[in-house]
This record gives sequence, C-alpha cells and structure tokens, in this order.
Amino acid sequence: MESNMIFVPIALAILGLLFMFIKMAWVKKQAPGNEKMQEISKSIKEGALAFLAAEYRLLVIFVVIASLALFGISMIVDTTSWMIVPAFVFGAIFSALAGNIGMRIATEANARTAEAAKTSLPQALKVSFGGGTVMGLGVAGLAVLGLSLFFMFFTGQFMGNEGSFYDNMTIVLEALAGFSLGAESIALFARVGGGIYTKAADVGADLVGKVEAGIPEDDPRNPATIADNVGDNVGDVAGMGADLFGSYVATVLAAMVLGNYLIRDMSQTGQFTDAYGNMGPILLPIVIAGVGILASIIGTFLVGIKNNDAKEAQVQKALDLGNWVAIILTVVASYFLIDMMLPSTMTMNFFGEGAKQIPSMNVFYATLIGLAVGALISVVTAYYTSLGKKPVMDIVQNSSTGAATNIIAGLAVGMKSTFLSVVLFAAAIYGSYELAGFYGVALAASAMMATTAMQLAIDAFGPIADNAGGVAEMSELEDHVRERTDILDSVGNTTAAVGKGFAIASAALTALALFAAYVTFTGIDGINIFKADVLAMLFVGGMIPVIFSALAMKSVGKAAMEMVQEVRRQFKEIPGIMEGTGTPEYAKCVDISTKAALKEMILPGLITIITPIIIGLLFGAEPLGGYMAGVCVSGVMWAIFQNNAGGAWDNAKKSFEAGVMIDGEMTYKGSDAHKAAVTGDTVGDPFKDTSGPSMNILIKLTCLVGLVIAPILGGHTSETAVAFNNIEVIQSANKDSEKKIEVRMKMEGELATATVTIETSEKGKVKHDVKKLKGSKAEVKAEIEAIKASIK
Amino acid sequence: MESNMIFVPIALAILGLLFMFIKMAWVKKQAPGNEKMQEISKSIKEGALAFLAAEYRLLVIFVVIASLALFGISMIVDTTSWMIVPAFVFGAIFSALAGNIGMRIATEANARTAEAAKTSLPQALKVSFGGGTVMGLGVAGLAVLGLSLFFMFFTGQFMGNEGSFYDNMTIVLEALAGFSLGAESIALFARVGGGIYTKAADVGADLVGKVEAGIPEDDPRNPATIADNVGDNVGDVAGMGADLFGSYVATVLAAMVLGNYLIRDMSQTGQFTDAYGNMGPILLPIVIAGVGILASIIGTFLVGIKNNDAKEAQVQKALDLGNWVAIILTVVASYFLIDMMLPSTMTMNFFGEGAKQIPSMNVFYATLIGLAVGALISVVTAYYTSLGKKPVMDIVQNSSTGAATNIIAGLAVGMKSTFLSVVLFAAAIYGSYELAGFYGVALAASAMMATTAMQLAIDAFGPIADNAGGVAEMSELEDHVRERTDILDSVGNTTAAVGKGFAIASAALTALALFAAYVTFTGIDGINIFKADVLAMLFVGGMIPVIFSALAMKSVGKAAMEMVQEVRRQFKEIPGIMEGTGTPEYAKCVDISTKAALKEMILPGLITIITPIIIGLLFGAEPLGGYMAGVCVSGVMWAIFQNNAGGAWDNAKKSFEAGVMIDGEMTYKGSDAHKAAVTGDTVGDPFKDTSGPSMNILIKLTCLVGLVIAPILGGHTSETAVAFNNIEVIQSANKDSEKKIEVRMKMEGELATATVTIETSEKGKVKHDVKKLKGSKAEVKAEIEAIKASIK
Repeated sequence: MESNMIFVPIALAILGLLFMFIKMAWVKKQAPGNEKMQEISKSIKEGALAFLAAEYRLLVIFVVIASLALFGISMIVDTTSWMIVPAFVFGAIFSALAGNIGMRIATEANARTAEAAKTSLPQALKVSFGGGTVMGLGVAGLAVLGLSLFFMFFTGQFMGNEGSFYDNMTIVLEALAGFSLGAESIALFARVGGGIYTKAADVGADLVGKVEAGIPEDDPRNPATIADNVGDNVGDVAGMGADLFGSYVATVLAAMVLGNYLIRDMSQTGQFTDAYGNMGPILLPIVIAGVGILASIIGTFLVGIKNNDAKEAQVQKALDLGNWVAIILTVVASYFLIDMMLPSTMTMNFFGEGAKQIPSMNVFYATLIGLAVGALISVVTAYYTSLGKKPVMDIVQNSSTGAATNIIAGLAVGMKSTFLSVVLFAAAIYGSYELAGFYGVALAASAMMATTAMQLAIDAFGPIADNAGGVAEMSELEDHVRERTDILDSVGNTTAAVGKGFAIASAALTALALFAAYVTFTGIDGINIFKADVLAMLFVGGMIPVIFSALAMKSVGKAAMEMVQEVRRQFKEIPGIMEGTGTPEYAKCVDISTKAALKEMILPGLITIITPIIIGLLFGAEPLGGYMAGVCVSGVMWAIFQNNAGGAWDNAKKSFEAGVMIDGEMTYKGSDAHKAAVTGDTVGDPFKDTSGPSMNILIKLTCLVGLVIAPILGGHTSETAVAFNNIEVIQSANKDSEKKIEVRMKMEGELATATVTIETSEKGKVKHDVKKLKGSKAEVKAEIEAIKASIK
Repeated sequence: MESNMIFVPIALAILGLLFMFIKMAWVKKQAPGNEKMQEISKSIKEGALAFLAAEYRLLVIFVVIASLALFGISMIVDTTSWMIVPAFVFGAIFSALAGNIGMRIATEANARTAEAAKTSLPQALKVSFGGGTVMGLGVAGLAVLGLSLFFMFFTGQFMGNEGSFYDNMTIVLEALAGFSLGAESIALFARVGGGIYTKAADVGADLVGKVEAGIPEDDPRNPATIADNVGDNVGDVAGMGADLFGSYVATVLAAMVLGNYLIRDMSQTGQFTDAYGNMGPILLPIVIAGVGILASIIGTFLVGIKNNDAKEAQVQKALDLGNWVAIILTVVASYFLIDMMLPSTMTMNFFGEGAKQIPSMNVFYATLIGLAVGALISVVTAYYTSLGKKPVMDIVQNSSTGAATNIIAGLAVGMKSTFLSVVLFAAAIYGSYELAGFYGVALAASAMMATTAMQLAIDAFGPIADNAGGVAEMSELEDHVRERTDILDSVGNTTAAVGKGFAIASAALTALALFAAYVTFTGIDGINIFKADVLAMLFVGGMIPVIFSALAMKSVGKAAMEMVQEVRRQFKEIPGIMEGTGTPEYAKCVDISTKAALKEMILPGLITIITPIIIGLLFGAEPLGGYMAGVCVSGVMWAIFQNNAGGAWDNAKKSFEAGVMIDGEMTYKGSDAHKAAVTGDTVGDPFKDTSGPSMNILIKLTCLVGLVIAPILGGHTSETAVAFNNIEVIQSANKDSEKKIEVRMKMEGELATATVTIETSEKGKVKHDVKKLKGSKAEVKAEIEAIKASIK
C-alpha cells in the first residue's frame, strides 16, 4: 500500500521555501542606505563570500575522500546501498547552501537595517527579523525537503525488494543516514572554521582597539573592524545555519530509525499495517517537522512592535509571542498527528524489561516533556547569563578585585550552571524513555527542533542587528541609529544564549536517540561499562570534547595573537591612522582570519570523524558504544560550561555600560573593574562562540559516524556473521571442570531468544565440546546448526 | 589454618612509625633559629593548629551522624557488622592524625630549615626532607597498621562463623571498608577546607601585596603573610597527608576485596587452600604495602647532596635516586611475594568471557603496567607543567598580549594535557585487566601507591622549604638563605606536579577497582548504559565533579575577595604599615581564611557523600553504577585539566623571574607580560590547590560510599532478597504472543548459573505463567522454588 503522507512535508517544505523567497525579495527591496554604507556592506559581504568559497574548496576534498570511504563501506556491507554516497554529497551541499543563503541575506540586511533604524525602531526590527526569517525558513525548508525527497526516492528503490519490511527499511534509513552525515560534517567544519574566524577577529580587534588604543567598537580606524564584521557573518550566521541544519536533519533521522524499530517490535504480534504505507511511526517525525515550518511562518507574522520608543523588553516580548505561537501550534498539530498516525496502543520493547503495551498518547506526553525541559533549560541558561541576575552580578562584583577574580567567578558560573541543566536533562531522558522508550526520547528531541525555522529567525536577527550597528558606526551615522540597533543587538544576545540552551538539550537528546539506534543496529546486547575495554573507551570518549575544545581555543588564541600584532603594526606604521586620515589595511586582517580558520579547523574535524572509526574497527561495537557515551556525557558538560561561562562574562562586561554598583560606588566603562571584565569577556569569546557551540555537533557527529559504520561492526554484514555476532557465550567455565556453558542466539529480524544449554558433564542434555565454539566462523556456524538440530 | 603473614605488615608498619619518631626527634634537635624566627614559626604553628582544631570540632559532628547512619545500615543488612562503626571512627581519627603529625613536623621544620640554610644547602635539604620523611612514614605507617590490625581483629571475629569463607570474608571486608570510608571522608573535608584556606590567603596576599602594593612575597608588611604560610601547612601538608592516607587505604582495601572474589572464583573448582590461612590473594596487597614502607625507609637514606653550590638539578637527582631505589626494591619484593603468595595458576572470571586460567606472574606484569603508566603519566604531567617546555613557553608567549590570551593559553594547555594522560590511563585499564582481571587493575594501583611513604616525603619537603623561605623573608635573614630555600622550593614545585600526575592515575585505578568490587558486591550483571535510568545517572555523575569544582572555586573567590578587602583596609588604615613602623593585624587575616574554609567545605563534602546514597536508594544498584562511572570519567578529566593548567600557569609566571625571550626581547618581572602571567597564576591557584586535587578524593569517596551501601541495594540483605535480586529476566515477551521467557538465577557463593527456560506456549518444557514473576517478593520466591523443584 502506498501512502501520500510523504507529500505533506514536501509540500510544507516548498511552501516554506516560497515564503523565504518572498521575504528575501522584500528585504532586498528596502533602501540600502548611502554610498558609504553600501560600500561597507559590500566589503563585509565580499570578505564573507571569499571565506566561504575558500572553505568550500577545502571541504570538497573532504567530501570526495569521505564519499570514497562510504562507497567502500557500501561494497562490503549488504545493508548499505551505494546510494548513501549521493545522499552524503547532497547532505553536504544542502548544509553549505543553508549556510550560504543565511550569510547572503544577512550581509544584505545589515546596511538596510541600519538605514531603517534611521527612521524607526519597528522598521529596523522588521528588516533584521526579515533577514532572520529568510535564514530560518531556508534551513528548515531545505532540511525537510532534502530528507523527504531522499526518503521517497529510497523507499521507491528498496521497499519492493525481497526481504522483510524491517530489513528493507533499514537499507533506506542507512542510506538516508548519509544525508545526515554529510550535513553534520559540513556543519562541524563550518562551525569550527567560522568560530575561529570570528573570534580571532573579535579578540584581535578588541584587545588592541578597545583596550590598548581606547577607540570604540567598530571604529573605522581599527584595521580589524571589517574582519570582525565578516566574522559575525561566517561564524554566527553561516556556521549557525549549517549547525542547525545538521541538528534538524539528525534529529528527524534518529526518530525515523527508531520508528522502524517500533514497527519491528509491533510486527512480532502479527503483520503491522496502517494507512500510511505501514510506516506511520517512521513518517511521523518528518510530518511534524513539516508542520513546524507552517507554524513558524504563522509565528513570524506576529513578531513586530509599534512603538518607536520601545526598549529591550518590548522587542523581547514581540519575539516571545511569535515563538510561543509557533510552539503551541506545533504542539496542537502534534497531538492530532500522533493520534492519527500511530496505532492507539503500541508494543514497545524496553531493554531489560521486555515488551510493554504503550498508548500512543505517551508519545505525545514525551514530546511535551521534551518541550518543557527544553524551555526550562533555556530558563536556566537565561538565568546564568542574563544582565542583572545574580550569577552575572557576581562576576561584576568580582571584577573589582581584578581580572583574576573575574575569571575565577566566570569559570565558577559556567561550571555551576551544569547542575540544573544536567538534572533537567537526565529527567528528560528518564521521563521520555519511561513514557515511550527511545522512540519517545527521539520524539522529544524532534518536538524541540520542530520550530527550528522560528528559532533560527530569532537567533539570526541578532547578528544582523549587530552588523547593522557596525555599519552605522563605520559610516558615522547619527547616534540614535546606533542606539536602536544596540537595543536589537542586546535582545539578540539574550535570545542567542537561550537558543544555545535549547540547542544543547536537543543535541543531547538527538545523540541519545542515535545512540539507541546504534545499539539496536549493531545487534549488541547493550553497552556494559563493567567490561574493561568498554570502560577504557568511555574514558577516551570523555577526553575528546576536552581536546576538541583545547584545539579550538588554542587556534583562536594563536590567530588572535597574529591579529593583535598586525593591528598593532598598522597603528604604528600607517601614518595618520588614529586621526582618521590614513586608511587601515582591512584586507590584511581579513586574510589572517581566513587563513587561520581554514588551517585550524582541519585537525579537530578529523579527530571527530576518524576516532570513532578507529575505535570501532579496533575494539568492536560495544567499546565504540562506550566511546560514544563518553563523548556525549563529557560533551554536554563542556558545552554547558563553556556556553554559559562565555555568555555570563559577556553580559558582566556589558553591565558596565549602564553602570553598576560595586561596594556602594557606581562604576562605569573605563574603570579598572570594567577592564577586568573586558579580559573575562575576551576569555569567554572562544568559549561561547567557538568551542562551546561545536560540542553539539561533535556529539551528534560522533553518534552519526557510529551509526554509519555500525553495519561493519556487526549485525548486518552477511549471514554467517549474523549468526556469529548474535551468539554470546554467557557463561563458560574451564573445560576440565565439566561445568556447563550457555549460549544465547538471537534470530535476526525477530526478537525471540533461542537458548541452548550445552554441558560438558555427563549429566548434560546436549553434550558438546566447548573448544569448538572458539573456532572459525564457519566452524561455529556448523556447530550451531548441529545444536539447533539436536534440540528441535 | 591460621597464618602469621598478617604480622609482616604490622611489624613493618611499626618499624616505619619507630623510624618516624627517630626522625622527628632528630628534626626537633636541630637549631630552631633566632627569636624572631621562632616567633614567626610559632605564629604559623598556632594558626595552623587553631584551624585544625576548629576543623576537627566540625568534623566530629559529621562523624557522629555518619556513624549513626552506618549503625542503621548494619542493623538492616546481614552482611554488615556493627563493627563498621568503630572502623569508620578509627579511619577518621587516623586520617586526622596523619594530617596532624605532618602539620606539626612541618611547622617545626620550617624555621629549622631556614636556620640550616644559613650554613649550607645540603643541611637545609636534610632538615626539610627529614620533615617530609616524618610525614611520609607517619601516613604510611598509620595506614598499614590500622588496616592490618582491623583486618586481624575482624578475621578473628567473623571467620570462624558458619557460612562459606567467601561470605564471612565479605563481612570482614565490608567492616574494613568502614575504615577506608572514615579516612576518605576526613580527607575530603581536609583537602577542600585546607585548599580553600590556603588559596584564599595566597590569592589575597598576592593580589594586594605583590600586584597592587608591589612588595615582595612573604613581606612582613603584608597582613596576609602569616595566613598565607599557615595555609601552606593546612592545605599542602595536612590536606595532602589526609588525602594520601585515604588513597593508600582505599587502594589496599579495593585490592583485598577483589582478592576475595579471586578466591571465590578459584573455589569453584574445589576448596581453595594456601599457606596463608587460605587468604593469600587478600593478604598480598597489604604485605606489599608493608614492604613498601621498608623500601621507602631505605630510599630516604639515599636522599642527600654534598655540594653547597648545588642547583635544582642536583637536588632533583638526589630525590629521584631515593625514589627509584624505593620503587625498584618494592618491585623486586613484589615479584617474590606474588610468586610466593599466589597459586601459580589462578582461575579468574572475566566478565562476558567466562573463566580463564591466569598465571600468577600476570599479576606481577599488571603491577609493572601500573608503575610504567604511573611513571609515564608523571612524565606527561611534568612536560605540560615544567619550566622551559613548550606548553609553559606557549603561555609565556601569550602573556605578551595580555591576561586574556594568557588565560586562554593556560586553559588550552590544561585541556590538551588530558589527551596523553587519558590514553595512557585507558591503556592501563585495558592492559592490567587483560592480564589479570580487576584484581590486576587493583594490584596495578597498589603498586603505584606502595611507596607512598617515599612519595609523600618528596612531596612534603616542598611546602616545608616554601615555608622556610617565608620565615627567612619575614625574619629578614640574609639573601643567600632565601636563595637556598628557593632552590628547594623550586624542586618541590616540580615534584608536586609530578606527584599529582601519579596521584590521579592511582586514584582512578583505585576507583575502578572499587567500582569492580561494587558490581560484584551488589550481584548485578554489569552496568548497562543502554538502560535509560543508568544513562541518565551517568550524566548526573558526570556533572558532580564540575559542580564540586565550581563550589570550591567560588569559595576561594569569595574568601579571597574578603581577604583582598581586609588587606587593602589595613594598608589604608594602619599608619606606618608600608614603612614597617606599624604592625599589620595578621590575626584578622588568619580569621578570615579559617571561617571561610570551614563554612565553605561543608556543601561540596555533603554533595559527594549524600548524592550516591540518594541515587542508590531511589534508582537501585545499576543506575548508581552509572553514576559512579560518570563521576570517575568526568572527575579524571577535570582533575588532569585543573591540575595541569594550574601548574603550567604557575611556572609560566615563574619563567619571568629568570627572564624570558618574547618577540626577540628579554622580558622580566614587573613587565606587562609578567603582570598578565600573575593573573593567570592567580586563576590557576584554586585549580591546582583546591578543586583539582579534590577530584581524586571525590571519585574514590563516591565509589567507597557506593561500596558501603551496596548491601542495601541488593545481593546481601536477606535470603529472600538474595533469591530475588539474583534473578534476571533476560528476555520476556508479550504473554499473548506465547513467546518464551528466560530466567537466570545466580546461586549465592557459587558462580554456577542455573538456567530455567519457561515457556507459555504449549511447546514449552516447563509451563509457567509470566505474570506471577512480577508479583511480590514472597510470591516470586514461591514461584522460583516451584520452578527449581520442577527442573530437579
């Protein structure tokens, strides 16, 4: 039976993309500002495009090599089709495209936002949020469209073949995993490369410009200013776009894979059928994603302010309104979709507990848990990073005794913030699993990600406003323009921090869902950390996010130092630069950032991708599972720590702009305490914009690589191997001691466990020599056949 | 059969303590210096004793409450004797005593070292190392004596009772675990309290004294000077003494527990007997520890220099000689002891692989792996933290662009240093487990810790020399005195860093051994992180070290700020203080540190102890195992990160004393780069002296608490529970689907696995209704009896 349900997400994705083009045309129609503004905007755009072009050239090499490797895997492994290769390539291209669309519109929107801010704040919000909307819809539309089309194509290719529904669907989803792998790989490089670029430029510009020379941010006399603004676009916009594109795809994919397992579980009690081509549980996540696009479009109409004298609070409220409407619409739609697309009672296998009957509404409750925990983690993140709240005020107070106490306080805030986040997160795992197994966990993550279009619109308008401020400053527009863009920028900072909380929560849940898919895929019995090799790899996995962060930070440090020296050199050598009569060599700074970013993104990227492959091949499926768990646990911790410490330092510094009360004295910009806070913010920059956000991608990509190589490690390679891998000697004793051994076999495709008890003693039911079970695969297979026959 | 082997460690421990008293008398006989020196030394001693007294008063409350809780456990649980309570109390007292002895001798030795330095460097080394030796032997002697005596007493109490050897020995070791728990609890509070004390004083003294007022370290005009020197004693000496006492005891205990399991495994093939009361594998670790004391005593005789113009290298060489001789003697002795005390071939159960025949020499090779990996991790630690090596030079270079880049570089160094350490550590787990199972892992840790007396002598002489320098400075002795103590201090810094590498490696291996003991003790089948609750607790566990570090750092930050304000106040308000005519109020600073340390050590301590109890009671044994693993993985990472970052920052700052080349220019103390390095060092102080070293204790204490409450969680509570807990439904399916379920039962005390196959289908051998197995314990027990009868 064929289903037309897949056309629903396709239609919604196309709708989203159409609306994106309309919004894009509208933004481009806005007045682009005076000549100077257009010139600056153009330099930023050119710098950003040049960087992306260089980045993509480098990534083509990676994509080619990875494609060859994937093609190799598809040749070895029966269940992996060679079509994983085009899926991978398109995943990579779509991801790059998503980043590119965002970057282009952001560089168009910045000057236009500044121009709009000349007349009114509501109009400036409209333009900058319009730019964000283009990006959000571009990412979400491309993700849903790519996934749906490939899914439709692959089901057409493989679902008619001989073999069970489950086996064929496994081939479909394995190929689809290629799309996700492509997207996530590019996301990693884009995030790390963009992150290094933007922070090298930012730190360099700040340290010499603001601290040493005492000139304001975005001052045209600062040679690193253009690089700084380019950085905002390649890091915060293009990097974030690729990141969220990857997250979105991975989350939906993981839920689809677990939907397939759900169907398998339900097939135990007879043929599973439904009105959706018998694949309701697999289609559900992608349909919810499609609906999320529509909900986001509706939400965007509600974002707007009327009052020209509005402050941060009103702007925030307008964004919140749009966001919540989108979320609530998605929730309501999810309720009906779950009710419609899932059987009212489902049989689910719970590890170690056996099969349970689960009402489909439990899946809906799991999505509610996902949304609630996501929202609460955002609240926690906001608390630890917001202006005026205790943690930030604490850092402010500690700034009065110098940079050292400021740093100690900031580190402590970041570390402390892990507590509530992790407790909430653990509750989400526990709760959604109890409700609906790992399918519930996956749907909880999907629900968090459903309104990605809206989330991203909100996230992306911040950097656009920031850039608009830069354009205003560099074009020496009137002060009220900068004031208005500053309001938008400040709101953008808060939404960015909140978005990060949401992102890490959804990434961690996605990683868990992928992890669950991995375990089921390899056919192993679980990941038992009481085995020494698994435990050892748990430690190795725990170390990877630390090393990754170290490499990212060191790269930023190195590049920033080069930048500092270049800016110092220009200040010294270019005559009249400080007086505004000499022109700084902006291009040199852009060049330093570009080269450093490209050079430094390679090692962390390769470590992420290659380490799980080595461990899987060397130690096997279960130790690789331990490694994946180690990466997830440590990655979540370091992500929260770095993001929140960075966010808190940033706002501690910002607190001085309006003035803060320290020891009964009002303290402002320029004070020693403020200088200490600037140092803290500089340390926090790579935390919150380079290594911190990379953690999300790191953990997801690790699990995706595991999932893609899973078939090599066991479970699916060939019939002999199937039989071999699913035999586990539960208990064997010394042959001489005449104790019995017990062998468990799992039949592929059905969950039944055949238990064979073999005894070497004369009392045994089946006499059997232990040693032969340790022979070659063929020998073992023969033995097993003999045992099977004897007990029939 | 009784064995006299237990008298060997008792005799060696007494020998160690005797030698300690001789050394102590010798140190006290040395000239105590002039009146001013004696007065300063006395103030330091009084401050330190006052702090310890206040700390102990607070800890008495904790010990009383914990004793009541332990008594409660012993009432509920059959296998836990009430004698765990005195064992716990004595563990606490011995730990406090160990710290106290060290602290007293250190405060005696400081002025005497300064006095000796007046005449010659060799004599100064002799006095300071003599002080260290007293402490090392005190800690090791008390540890071995306490463990041996309690073990002897408990075996006398319980080994004659009815029940198997294994069961009775379990009761003995469970009671002995109380001793270790007591020691480790006090260690935690002492380390955290001492760490907060010393760093609050140090940071406070440095920030105002060195940075703001520009007066040298230990200048008598600085009001925080006495507090700073007191801090060295309560943190680096008393804290470290309690820490290593706890480590040592925990390591030996874990090895003994695993020795008991080894005997159980070997008993499967018949009665296990040997010439050591049938407990060779249990006695072996404690005998090795005893021999280690003797080897350390011999080693101390070799530490000495002749040349009065010796530099750091020669002093280091002298210490290395003593250290290596002690290690080699222990290794040689271990070879013969292992050969003698273990059966030449042993049956060991490997999880998931069944029983294997292991030659006893594999245990020796495991100890070699332990020593080799310990030494290599020390080399890695030394590389990342030593003067003149690339990582430190990197931080130095990054200081030229300010405090922010210095901090970024330092953080990156700490993070990067996790790579090799963790890889080595994972190799140690893997290698020693492959060789000789978890017993091998435990013996590897024991071997690392065997020469604790020598290690500690080397570690403790550093702070004594540091204090001697302080006394010299405050008493305004001639410059060459300070130069000589500085040489000793500098060597002490290196040995301290290396010691920390060793400590974290041994702590992690000990934690693993405890973890293995825990799994075997609770009777669970492993820790499967594919179960959602276990995975959730793995995350929660991973968060604990981060929160713990945050609390410790924040406490230091808070206390340091109070100290800074107090010192600033005194500089402002006390007339003539800067000219040396006014006397600073030292006592006020001592008071601030004392109060802050006591107040702030409570929360992290309680979190460590209470969290595992809550998780165990709420979620059960396996999720608690996940929690323990999370704490270990994350704790090891944060320990290495914090210790090495702190050490590297410290030496980066020190590099400026001799001058460093930055961008082709020699840069010295007082430069901007140096100021940036001082900021980095200040951030690093709580890292390396408060939160970093606490991680060791945190992970061991977590595992110990788990071990002590293990009997409540399963395995040993009562016969009914035994039967119930050892049944695991491996695979159950929907009743309606007429699939079979399989139930595995473990018989307590013997490893045989009885497999019962129950089918609900008409084909089944034993017809049985699945549902009843989900009833109450009594019902289940009845069911099982019925099954047992039917298959007999």
